[in-house]
Amino acid sequence: MSFSFKLINEEDSSRRGEILTSHGPIQTPAFMPVGTYGAVKAMSPLTLEELKAEIILSNTFHLMERPGIEVIKEHGGLHNFIGWKKPILTDSGGYQVYSIAKNKSVSNEGVQFNSPLNGDKIFLTPEICMDLQLAFNVDIAMVLDECTAYSKDKEKVKDSMQLSVLWANRCRDRFNSSQNALFGIIQGGVFKELRESSINSLVKIGFEGYAIGGLSVGEPIEEMIKIVNFVSPLMPKDKPRYLMGVGTPMDILKAVEMGIDLFDCVIPTRHARNGYLYTSRGLVRIRNSNNKNNLDPLDHNCSCYTCRTFSRAYLHHLDKTKEMLGSTLNTIHNLSYYLNLMADLREAIEQGKLRPFLSKFKENWEKFID
Amino acid sequence: MSFSFKLINEEDSSRRGEILTSHGPIQTPAFMPVGTYGAVKAMSPLTLEELKAEIILSNTFHLMERPGIEVIKEHGGLHNFIGWKKPILTDSGGYQVYSIAKNKSVSNEGVQFNSPLNGDKIFLTPEICMDLQLAFNVDIAMVLDECTAYSKDKEKVKDSMQLSVLWANRCRDRFNSSQNALFGIIQGGVFKELRESSINSLVKIGFEGYAIGGLSVGEPIEEMIKIVNFVSPLMPKDKPRYLMGVGTPMDILKAVEMGIDLFDCVIPTRHARNGYLYTSRGLVRIRNSNNKNNLDPLDHNCSCYTCRTFSRAYLHHLDKTKEMLGSTLNTIHNLSYYLNLMADLREAIEQGKLRPFLSKFKENWEKFID
Repeated sequence: MSFSFKLINEEDSSRRGEILTSHGPIQTPAFMPVGTYGAVKAMSPLTLEELKAEIILSNTFHLMERPGIEVIKEHGGLHNFIGWKKPILTDSGGYQVYSIAKNKSVSNEGVQFNSPLNGDKIFLTPEICMDLQLAFNVDIAMVLDECTAYSKDKEKVKDSMQLSVLWANRCRDRFNSSQNALFGIIQGGVFKELRESSINSLVKIGFEGYAIGGLSVGEPIEEMIKIVNFVSPLMPKDKPRYLMGVGTPMDILKAVEMGIDLFDCVIPTRHARNGYLYTSRGLVRIRNSNNKNNLDPLDHNCSCYTCRTFSRAYLHHLDKTKEMLGSTLNTIHNLSYYLNLMADLREAIEQGKLRPFLSKFKENWEKFID
Repeated sequence: MSFSFKLINEEDSSRRGEILTSHGPIQTPAFMPVGTYGAVKAMSPLTLEELKAEIILSNTFHLMERPGIEVIKEHGGLHNFIGWKKPILTDSGGYQVYSIAKNKSVSNEGVQFNSPLNGDKIFLTPEICMDLQLAFNVDIAMVLDECTAYSKDKEKVKDSMQLSVLWANRCRDRFNSSQNALFGIIQGGVFKELRESSINSLVKIGFEGYAIGGLSVGEPIEEMIKIVNFVSPLMPKDKPRYLMGVGTPMDILKAVEMGIDLFDCVIPTRHARNGYLYTSRGLVRIRNSNNKNNLDPLDHNCSCYTCRTFSRAYLHHLDKTKEMLGSTLNTIHNLSYYLNLMADLREAIEQGKLRPFLSKFKENWEKFID
């Protein structure tokens, strides 16, 4: 197995670690930029490398629809197809089946739905999901899970969680890679008892890493934090812990504090395209007219290409004139912000200084509109 | 005057030259990528430098509307505003007044029209046009001219040409830069006599370079070539000759053969965004389904980032999924094609081998759909 994880340092619950894969190492805690269709929006692989991204996430569901598995197979896997040489994680499609599939019907066997793209009938099973990700040859594959909306109906959530465990079992059986990792996904909604049962079942099956799924699906933010706080310490210490789809910088900080190692989220890239930019002094809406004549860089404390080269006024101008370059420069900056934040967190944990780092950050954060 | 031009070599009518500006040299014949709003669409200045672009064109008319002159002034000029350190040429807005301004009325004094952006009344005079370009502090400014549609009404074309000469005179009087160049624009439609009269008048005024304007405005392509062929030899030998808004690779080759030194055109960048890509084996429409499974690079004979890194299948996929990255990678390739073509032309003229180069190119060109 080319995949391994080791802890380098711990401070309270937080962890500084390193994942090794056949496409290189990933320093954790790590943030994974999202490249839904095998491209992080407005970024080239070269630019992502320059930003020191060590892993990106791509979406099985979307790639299955376009370009389809055959094209990726012919390229010998997703890395070759998209020109990205470093690690890739693909989600399983469980979340997209929940969020964008039409007319879905779930059975023990799998889930049937209509493609949101062309209406085609698609039947996704744990086995098919594994075959897809095996053909992608990605460094980290995710089990197919059932993701459900926020619900207070414990019996319903329990049934769904148990189905996810059943599927996780079949995923493990099918996923016969000697090289790449398969992560289990913990479900159980906002019910601690169900979350615990889910973890125990998944650990019994045995995965190379574990993810917390089924959050950010409509539950109040406090519930989410409570669950992460409960689940994280129950997750195996010697495996990477991944909090799926999270989040804002503040969410990430809180989760790192609770011992999470991996994150992915569309926020930095989507916000960038909408002109919301993270800076050391707060969130800047570049479209605001007070940037029209502003000769300052976006963030004096940032050394990304965008901040080194352009004024806020130019970024404002690109936004107003809908120039694609604006999306690119904004994305460079926001990803730089996220990736630097992760580097700062790693350094703080290494030096046993996470606490002062967090309190200082939280203090500044008050100014953020988020 | 920081601006100068020297001829390095000539072969028949074609010229190999070098323009020096305070922002660096330009090897001619040169192609100028178009950055209407101070950004070449989907390109960063860094990428343009990597492509070895030596000069870009930007549009006075558009920049006057957005961001407006004050913002550019506050940045100390257009270079600082857009983060591009090499030479810039701005057109004068004459062509945009002709092509996109609403309710325009032309008098000897200047031209009044409504902004296509917000309907505001704008009055543009030769003096205002010079003041704008002086504030931009661009290396090459263009005189304000009246551009008219293709017409067989000689008297009308003559009146317009004479107005352009009148304006050119006032532009020269106003343009008091010791550093940057001002180019005159030859008008006169498809009438040789008027073109000749225009040149003589402009040369009497005296400019640092001369451009052929008023072509590609609806006249048959043969008429255009006939006019360039007639006008070019009448233009001063010791000054750069610029054919505005031209063109396809084949148009450029023909014009280089006739002694033209400078070109600008939106074709490579616009075609790129629409998925039409120039290759050594013809024009490729990347959207075509025969590219869906094609593992080859776009062009085996091209060493641009796009061709070094990605398959046609991936470019096809980016086009189908409307990923911005597709526009960027396609633009890198098409500009690379144009800029390499210019480099090849320069080398051929230097070595006195333009003729065999042209015949070989024209032979291949037959395959192009253009």
